[in-house]
Amino acid sequence: MKIILASGSPRRKELLRLIYPEFSVVPSPFDEKSLDPAGLPPETLAETLARRKAEAVFRQTEGDTLVIGGDTVVVSPEGEAMGKPQDAADAARMLRALSGKRHRVTSGIGIFWRKGGAEGAHSFRTVTQVAFYPLTEKEIAAYIATGEPFDKAGGYGIQGYGGMLVEKIDGDYWNVVGLPAGRLRRELEALGLL
Amino acid sequence: MKIILASGSPRRKELLRLIYPEFSVVPSPFDEKSLDPAGLPPETLAETLARRKAEAVFRQTEGDTLVIGGDTVVVSPEGEAMGKPQDAADAARMLRALSGKRHRVTSGIGIFWRKGGAEGAHSFRTVTQVAFYPLTEKEIAAYIATGEPFDKAGGYGIQGYGGMLVEKIDGDYWNVVGLPAGRLRRELEALGLL
Repeated sequence: MKIILASGSPRRKELLRLIYPEFSVVPSPFDEKSLDPAGLPPETLAETLARRKAEAVFRQTEGDTLVIGGDTVVVSPEGEAMGKPQDAADAARMLRALSGKRHRVTSGIGIFWRKGGAEGAHSFRTVTQVAFYPLTEKEIAAYIATGEPFDKAGGYGIQGYGGMLVEKIDGDYWNVVGLPAGRLRRELEALGLL
Repeated sequence: MKIILASGSPRRKELLRLIYPEFSVVPSPFDEKSLDPAGLPPETLAETLARRKAEAVFRQTEGDTLVIGGDTVVVSPEGEAMGKPQDAADAARMLRALSGKRHRVTSGIGIFWRKGGAEGAHSFRTVTQVAFYPLTEKEIAAYIATGEPFDKAGGYGIQGYGGMLVEKIDGDYWNVVGLPAGRLRRELEALGLL
């Protein structure tokens, strides 16, 4: 069975390797902007996007294939989905919104497969609560200077310098990194795809 | 000021690099076996060991120096301190004890410094609760076969394949890895050592 990760994220690639030693990476052609996030609750947005991303890659394949897509949404303390910062000012705005408060991070996983002619689809989401230390303007500026915030939803990466801003989490850690690998392996096993 | 990490753990080294770009590593000559863990509550054991480890290295130094020592204790669901497994059977016994249950991981940090002739000492501990998935014998055997359990208290490493066994945590993730870097940086800053 051919295994494909429908995500270009190096973090998801690293985590999926804990489940499958070998797979290919095909970033999804699905255009996130074609889906209006305003019409979807932030809690289900990641799962919807993950399904769409995986399905778009799956439709380009033939024969026995398993496609796994993922999406991570950071929900601000005020309940709004936070995207990736556009610039340093935007990153600072996001970090100030998270400072000294708790927020939620949801990763959605979409799975599509074809096996002996039959097709199947499955998806799930995992939610983790993250509590930030109160941040000073100096800390925010120093963190932005690392360059880490720019390709990350919510403006931080928990597995790098961003982890220094986090006081504690409640839930699955790898879910915040971008792929809840422990849960995913269990779901794949239950589906007979391991 | 000379900065020394009094621990040979590659994980602590990697995490301390998030705080100080440069430091030396001097594994502590303090013999853990000289301290009878049976006489100490598991919750304070890590902090006591971390102080002793840091102090033993500090006493070998001269001039302006900062020494940081760390120790991590995994406390079984039954409340006993778990060491590093002696062999595969011991690792399997530990993993069975953690399976499907919650346990606590405490990292202690000991800090000793000399600055302009004056000396100071400080220590603290951080506790994280870890919940394991229920594990099958097959999963336990497969995890032991990775070789990961053998140099780790409790028989697992949360940052590697061992993270697949963990359903969720409540607290500081890096504390479970072995050095609560975010908390440590804040403590060092409050002490004027950053």
